[in-house]
Amino acid sequence: MSLPRIAVDAMGGDEGVRVMIEGAALARRRHDRFKFLLVGDETRIKAALEKHPNLRSSSEILHSDGVISGEDKPSQALRRAKGTSMGLAIAAVKAGDAGAAVSAGNTGALMAISKVTLRTMPGIDRPALAALLPTLGDNDVIMLDLGANTECDSRNLVQFAVMGAAYARVALGREQPRVRLLNIGTEEIKGTDLLRDAAATLKAAAKDLSMSFDGFTEADKLCRGDVDVVVTDGFSGNIALKSVEGTARFVADLLRRGFTSSLRSKIGFLISRPATELLKHHLDPNNHNGAVFLGLNGIVVKSHGGANAAGVANAVAVTARLLEENVTERITADLARVGEASLRMPRAQEERA
Amino acid sequence: MSLPRIAVDAMGGDEGVRVMIEGAALARRRHDRFKFLLVGDETRIKAALEKHPNLRSSSEILHSDGVISGEDKPSQALRRAKGTSMGLAIAAVKAGDAGAAVSAGNTGALMAISKVTLRTMPGIDRPALAALLPTLGDNDVIMLDLGANTECDSRNLVQFAVMGAAYARVALGREQPRVRLLNIGTEEIKGTDLLRDAAATLKAAAKDLSMSFDGFTEADKLCRGDVDVVVTDGFSGNIALKSVEGTARFVADLLRRGFTSSLRSKIGFLISRPATELLKHHLDPNNHNGAVFLGLNGIVVKSHGGANAAGVANAVAVTARLLEENVTERITADLARVGEASLRMPRAQEERA
Repeated sequence: MSLPRIAVDAMGGDEGVRVMIEGAALARRRHDRFKFLLVGDETRIKAALEKHPNLRSSSEILHSDGVISGEDKPSQALRRAKGTSMGLAIAAVKAGDAGAAVSAGNTGALMAISKVTLRTMPGIDRPALAALLPTLGDNDVIMLDLGANTECDSRNLVQFAVMGAAYARVALGREQPRVRLLNIGTEEIKGTDLLRDAAATLKAAAKDLSMSFDGFTEADKLCRGDVDVVVTDGFSGNIALKSVEGTARFVADLLRRGFTSSLRSKIGFLISRPATELLKHHLDPNNHNGAVFLGLNGIVVKSHGGANAAGVANAVAVTARLLEENVTERITADLARVGEASLRMPRAQEERA
Repeated sequence: MSLPRIAVDAMGGDEGVRVMIEGAALARRRHDRFKFLLVGDETRIKAALEKHPNLRSSSEILHSDGVISGEDKPSQALRRAKGTSMGLAIAAVKAGDAGAAVSAGNTGALMAISKVTLRTMPGIDRPALAALLPTLGDNDVIMLDLGANTECDSRNLVQFAVMGAAYARVALGREQPRVRLLNIGTEEIKGTDLLRDAAATLKAAAKDLSMSFDGFTEADKLCRGDVDVVVTDGFSGNIALKSVEGTARFVADLLRRGFTSSLRSKIGFLISRPATELLKHHLDPNNHNGAVFLGLNGIVVKSHGGANAAGVANAVAVTARLLEENVTERITADLARVGEASLRMPRAQEERA
């Protein structure tokens, strides 16, 4: 059976068509069983493909005139979706012309168009943006939501936890994922009412949800590797993720300054290159690029707007892996197993309140 | 004229009396004009002082039986304050027995007791926790609130901006501080209604407030050094700060692993020590310890609960500098200059809405 195609929104991202196509071409070399649907301005895509015959021979181009910009509000993006590269890429997933879509465009627009076009899984009110972050432990940590939902209620957070746990079973192979809520302290009294409500619901339901709910975690423990899923609202998740990225860049810059400040340091740098390469690998956000919208009936992956070609290739590779692993079907089945009843619990609690 | 004393809550912090006393002793060596009021269990303080005759000779002990714990809610802490080391340290500032207080205890309790005991400056509804973070630019960046106010409205954020700007004029010597609001994007449509409201108010009033309001910033730009004051609510600020700290620790750990993984790396490490020392200095949160509650009629500094003696010494040094620079008087004067009228604006706006 041939694998479904990956639709690439060639127009999104700060760097435009060239980087998206170069990234897809890099990914294609690693995942040569995949075919691509490249969506956007045909002339520019064809020009970019000239350097990548390998990708060209495994791609089809779907022309679109329109582009969703970074300034478009989700509501505007929804109205304009049909004529845009982002809208067409997601419509291709809905129609079965592609198995998954990748875009580096406006996150809010991507969320809105994906939700309206693909709909959420049974029992899920809103999709959430999830990514794997590196840790000092044996496996990465899944964090969600990273920016799709600026404001969330406790019911959303509980559903994010359930989706995150299902993703952890698929992506990390953990049968009972260790789940925590991000908070500004670990004591039960810390944080907002909605965090405490979500914690109470998850604590009571953890066994039925096949997860180990370990309470709250603080943002300085994200990389420690003692938790599989960290759940938060999209505002805090985005702040945390970008703080991590900014600090990594800050450190990389300091290292560069330090190592180039004297001949002695330069020599030391050359000798210790394996160590600094390891660090560079971990610090470059391009190496962790590609966040997936969990909870949709279809795979939509967000590539960082500022990613380079290697970063785009990683986002496409994440997409390929999600497709190969049938992640949508498996999470849907997993959610059905833990039961819609469990997912509905928070609403019951809210009605009570 | 002799300088006012610094009251040290000797009982707060994860490490207890020994680290607080050792930290005060270290700070005393650097700021030998200061005297101290050490508040807490007299027997344990005396025992800890045995190793530090220099501090002992410049200190007085104020005995207390009670301690505010990390689990105490602010309301509980307020009721119990009088018999505790934290409560007595702040009461000493109120009574003029000390010029400033330092505590490594429960942040929420410290905020509540300080606010009730010392009261807020004219025009300020709530104090905010502010700290200086290192950047790649010429000066540090002031960030607030770092965790004193879990939930804020737009009026609070505007006041934090005004206080942050006043602090920047004192601590950074910038006449027109560059102020931004932390958000999950820089476009005007991004974020929550309250962030957009605060931005609109600051944009309109920036000139009167002697600041340059430059709109939103994202968390990955905190260390870039192109802004003097970053304003946010206490939840997001705490998430951002701890993400930065956690990433710094993550990187330091990776470096250690990388540099000790082979003989070659070890040699490289030794040769390039100036570079790694620079990095270590920047990465260790103890070197940036000491956040001040801005907006109070008195100086209260929060030391990180997990700080070591060097970290406590830095928090005490921050306190000493705030005292030497008369920061409370100068910020109060600065706020009076920009005018209570400006501070009241957000309320007018809210009434309109």
